[in-house]
Amino acid sequence: MKLVRYRFKHPYAQSRMGIVQGDHVLDISGLQHELIERGTLDAATYLIPSDPQAFYQQAQFHIEQTEQLLPHMKDTDSLHMHKREDVVLEAPVPNPSKIICTGINYANHVKEMGSDIPKYPVLFSKFNNALIGPEDDIHNPQTTNKLDYEVELAVVIGKRASYVKKEDALTYVAGYTIANDISARDLQKRTPQWLQGKSLDHTTPIGPWLVTRSELADPSNLAITSYVNQEVRQSSNTKHLIFDIEYLISFISSLMTLEPGDIIFTGTPDGVGLAMNPSRFLQAGDTVKLEIEKVGTLTNRVIDK
Amino acid sequence: MKLVRYRFKHPYAQSRMGIVQGDHVLDISGLQHELIERGTLDAATYLIPSDPQAFYQQAQFHIEQTEQLLPHMKDTDSLHMHKREDVVLEAPVPNPSKIICTGINYANHVKEMGSDIPKYPVLFSKFNNALIGPEDDIHNPQTTNKLDYEVELAVVIGKRASYVKKEDALTYVAGYTIANDISARDLQKRTPQWLQGKSLDHTTPIGPWLVTRSELADPSNLAITSYVNQEVRQSSNTKHLIFDIEYLISFISSLMTLEPGDIIFTGTPDGVGLAMNPSRFLQAGDTVKLEIEKVGTLTNRVIDK
Repeated sequence: MKLVRYRFKHPYAQSRMGIVQGDHVLDISGLQHELIERGTLDAATYLIPSDPQAFYQQAQFHIEQTEQLLPHMKDTDSLHMHKREDVVLEAPVPNPSKIICTGINYANHVKEMGSDIPKYPVLFSKFNNALIGPEDDIHNPQTTNKLDYEVELAVVIGKRASYVKKEDALTYVAGYTIANDISARDLQKRTPQWLQGKSLDHTTPIGPWLVTRSELADPSNLAITSYVNQEVRQSSNTKHLIFDIEYLISFISSLMTLEPGDIIFTGTPDGVGLAMNPSRFLQAGDTVKLEIEKVGTLTNRVIDK
Repeated sequence: MKLVRYRFKHPYAQSRMGIVQGDHVLDISGLQHELIERGTLDAATYLIPSDPQAFYQQAQFHIEQTEQLLPHMKDTDSLHMHKREDVVLEAPVPNPSKIICTGINYANHVKEMGSDIPKYPVLFSKFNNALIGPEDDIHNPQTTNKLDYEVELAVVIGKRASYVKKEDALTYVAGYTIANDISARDLQKRTPQWLQGKSLDHTTPIGPWLVTRSELADPSNLAITSYVNQEVRQSSNTKHLIFDIEYLISFISSLMTLEPGDIIFTGTPDGVGLAMNPSRFLQAGDTVKLEIEKVGTLTNRVIDK
């Protein structure tokens, strides 16, 4: 199942939860109400929230509830099925309480960055001011001259996780999406801590949707690629992660309790603009396309801001 | 004015906004309703939210509204004045969208940490899982053997701030509180990024209240002290900040938009446990007392967890 956060193209439209159905987006809450009105579902059914914030507060439960609607979908020629061009897709997860990023987590990227293979996952963060959706433009602000792309598989947490064992870790996952861990290299490197180059306003697209764990059971062998203006820049596979997803969830959950909707960025492979010779940074007008096998494609334009 | 977030000692009590009045806490929303009922305020008055989250979403406006109640306070023998021992004080600000910390921002602390004087503020972050209130215990989890204290003046943002000039910066401040930037030195130092040693669950007390900007106009010359079990460990003055509060707000707001309720930790002076010879870390049973002139005292006990 591919979960989206979407809104209608109306100035006062609110974000709602939907499912991608081919070229359409099906509104989850709308579908459920329709099934109740038709008598397919009991009127006393638990109502799945239409509001994404409420949905993700109990992500795993709401995903399970949504999955139970799916067998009924063919019964219906739903009023709540919207053409993709009539809606705007937003960052799939709203206001995560944590965006935890993993640095230097592919061996070839460690090498190109001149780092050493880490003994422990290197963790840093972004704040919500940085997050944008799949149809938003990446801002290239005047504060940086070295804006760079980083394709990453992002993991969204489904239920509260504390001191989770590696072997249980995937059961805490709601699903997967694509993240562009946009980094202002000049700001990132001018102090020992990277945060100031990692959380610029409106710079970090995620999306286009959340592929739920039931659809993508094994995230450990996925081709991962980035393109700038159709030129391949990064091309690797999640099997090359130094610390895999189970390890990261177990490790991080021993440090801080993970909440539903929290996002873990798992790190980027080699091929970033900084490491090219000469370095090639993003400019206004560039288009960055990220692809992860079985997850999808995330494409954003860069604009000056 | 000293703003508190407090709750009654009842298992289902919700957080509310109050003002410290000597040994009492006055409920803001309660006072306002009482003044309306007595006819002192018009019934069409804007209602100040009792919920701290809603209060801080428009912090500056709500602080101004609250200040307008104060002249009326003596008229009343309020039902809404509670003894300090009947309530629990919580972390004054709930769920900030950002907790931005400043590293190595006092010259003597730079020296004791073996760092260089930074050219730019060194920024890192904590997440909300770490925040606790003035009456909570600091957790010392099994994951660390090197838990350390850091007294810091914390700045709470009052209104949205983006590309703010240094000379205007203080007008974006709601007020000031005390923070203990508890750090697990072993975890902080085992990778190049400090986050994993800085955001352990239930480790970072703030409080006991927010001293509003109208009460504390000049934060640039305040004695700042920490004690462990009554022994002085850190003793300095905010005049020794390398990057002062105006600079920090201007600098950070050029990188990321600050929202009402966001918290900036301004850095700690020398005297941390790591830098003692031999190092002395916190243990269960220790009491850490932090004092900042004109702000107050924040005292928390350490417990194993």
